[in-house]
Amino acid sequence: MAVYTDVAAEDLARFLAGYDIGELLAYKGIAEGVENSNFLVHTSRGYFILTLYERRVAERDLPFFLALMEHLARAGITCPQPVKNRAGVTLGRLAGRPAAIVTFLDGMWMRRPSAAHCAALGEALARLHLAGADFSMRRENALSVAGWRQLYTACGERADQVQHDLKAVLAAELELLEREWPRGLPQGVIHADLFPDNVFFLGDKLSGLIDFYFACTDTLVYDVAVCLNAWCFEVDHSYNVTKGHALLASYAKTRPLSAPEWENLPLLTRGAALRFLLTRLVDWLDVPPGALVRPKDPLEYLRKLRFHQQAKSARDYGVTTP
Amino acid sequence: MAVYTDVAAEDLARFLAGYDIGELLAYKGIAEGVENSNFLVHTSRGYFILTLYERRVAERDLPFFLALMEHLARAGITCPQPVKNRAGVTLGRLAGRPAAIVTFLDGMWMRRPSAAHCAALGEALARLHLAGADFSMRRENALSVAGWRQLYTACGERADQVQHDLKAVLAAELELLEREWPRGLPQGVIHADLFPDNVFFLGDKLSGLIDFYFACTDTLVYDVAVCLNAWCFEVDHSYNVTKGHALLASYAKTRPLSAPEWENLPLLTRGAALRFLLTRLVDWLDVPPGALVRPKDPLEYLRKLRFHQQAKSARDYGVTTP
Repeated sequence: MAVYTDVAAEDLARFLAGYDIGELLAYKGIAEGVENSNFLVHTSRGYFILTLYERRVAERDLPFFLALMEHLARAGITCPQPVKNRAGVTLGRLAGRPAAIVTFLDGMWMRRPSAAHCAALGEALARLHLAGADFSMRRENALSVAGWRQLYTACGERADQVQHDLKAVLAAELELLEREWPRGLPQGVIHADLFPDNVFFLGDKLSGLIDFYFACTDTLVYDVAVCLNAWCFEVDHSYNVTKGHALLASYAKTRPLSAPEWENLPLLTRGAALRFLLTRLVDWLDVPPGALVRPKDPLEYLRKLRFHQQAKSARDYGVTTP
Repeated sequence: MAVYTDVAAEDLARFLAGYDIGELLAYKGIAEGVENSNFLVHTSRGYFILTLYERRVAERDLPFFLALMEHLARAGITCPQPVKNRAGVTLGRLAGRPAAIVTFLDGMWMRRPSAAHCAALGEALARLHLAGADFSMRRENALSVAGWRQLYTACGERADQVQHDLKAVLAAELELLEREWPRGLPQGVIHADLFPDNVFFLGDKLSGLIDFYFACTDTLVYDVAVCLNAWCFEVDHSYNVTKGHALLASYAKTRPLSAPEWENLPLLTRGAALRFLLTRLVDWLDVPPGALVRPKDPLEYLRKLRFHQQAKSARDYGVTTP
């Protein structure tokens, strides 16, 4: 949960006067998103989300994120739509931070996603990848294989404080992934962080995708690998093959995967697990005193990584006819 | 900011099915209130606030708080109105906690209240006291003079860790207040925590009062003393006599104060300052590791207390014709 920067009512009213979205009636900081400060804003025209971008999001990347949301919304993907101000611009400044207003999206994220939710997610992810195909901007994935060694350097020496031998596990895994990471698979816009809290449902129907602040240009099936990690493990860290099957079959029905994409799935899920293991480990070891955000458990991803290390093919993820 | 208890969408939908307020469309944890978990809930019938009552609020007090809000709303005070479920009951249970739905109130709290805001507050506070006069339930103020020694015992020994000699200041002040605390002044329902974040404005017009979870039966003018502390000091801890005058004159115009009430004002403001100094000190010294709430600075109230110790009469607070 997060509101890092507070906003005074007068300042927000002045900011909103630059938009054609009515009079400010109420606003409340919301406990969502760990990277930015978010407020639910009520105006005489409806409800909106105000985001103040905090230090961890690079300001130079904001035009990519905002243009992507506009592009996807035009292509029929339900996601927050950046609202243009009277000057036709979506990115502003408020309380010393870059700031944007986006539309409010109904829907709830699933704390306990079912196989049906995983199937809906698979289709939505494939549609997202297809919709992103003609998006012209590019953004490198700073948190893909080329960025992991830097994360490892930042936390490797202290890794054994969290679990005995963790440093050696990370070093070996990193070396293998750097050597074998697939380079020629289909690329495009990926969400890169499509965890359950970024996917809204109304009943069993997927109603929208949010939080595009890790989106980038990368291997499409890597996005699938992130979702397998985030959606298809149970709370006891066991892999649920029914959910995996639902996600993969539903994705492949909308965007068929090539043979090399299927073949590389186990390697890509290992990579996705290492990525979240490393970033969580850095956060875990770097919590400042008095921090208002409780870091997530890195070892959850060590357990997932161990599952992936044993996987031999896409069949281990629930695919019956790759 | 606070969301201590999370709620799954299915559980919330099931809870809301007991109410006649439409279908669940969205809900978000909000970063408001430090005692309870609050969610903004969107249904097909509108917006509501869901509160899960956490351990610091005694369950036996909840009927008092909810009945008070209903009483005040009926008496024309704009405050959140508890929503009855289909069984006619306002208090339920969700996620293992006592829970209630109240109406959503538009308006913003003032981070930098002006003298005009203080005047509006004074009138609203007086109207609250008048509206509470025929409320039949009673609740003792656990945080008035009779409760301070217990707080002092909890933190006195460690007070000097926060500031040299603080323990001696607290001991002397507590002794004086216990001896001289006025007993015969008019009593009634007081809010007891009417800080700026509990008072909403639309423009310069006061639009509502929230957070009645410290409300109790106590000396009415003590509530005024709490507000003088909370509204009329500048960020440099100097007392703003213009704001004090605005608050007091406006209060007295709606509910005239008797001579003994005016005379005891300096003593009551000392008491109010000591109450917040003590509770903040306890919170400051008891922050558990990994806490998600940053405690408020207790020394702010030591500086306010020093001002009150010098005050000789209500004139020092900006009253011209008591």
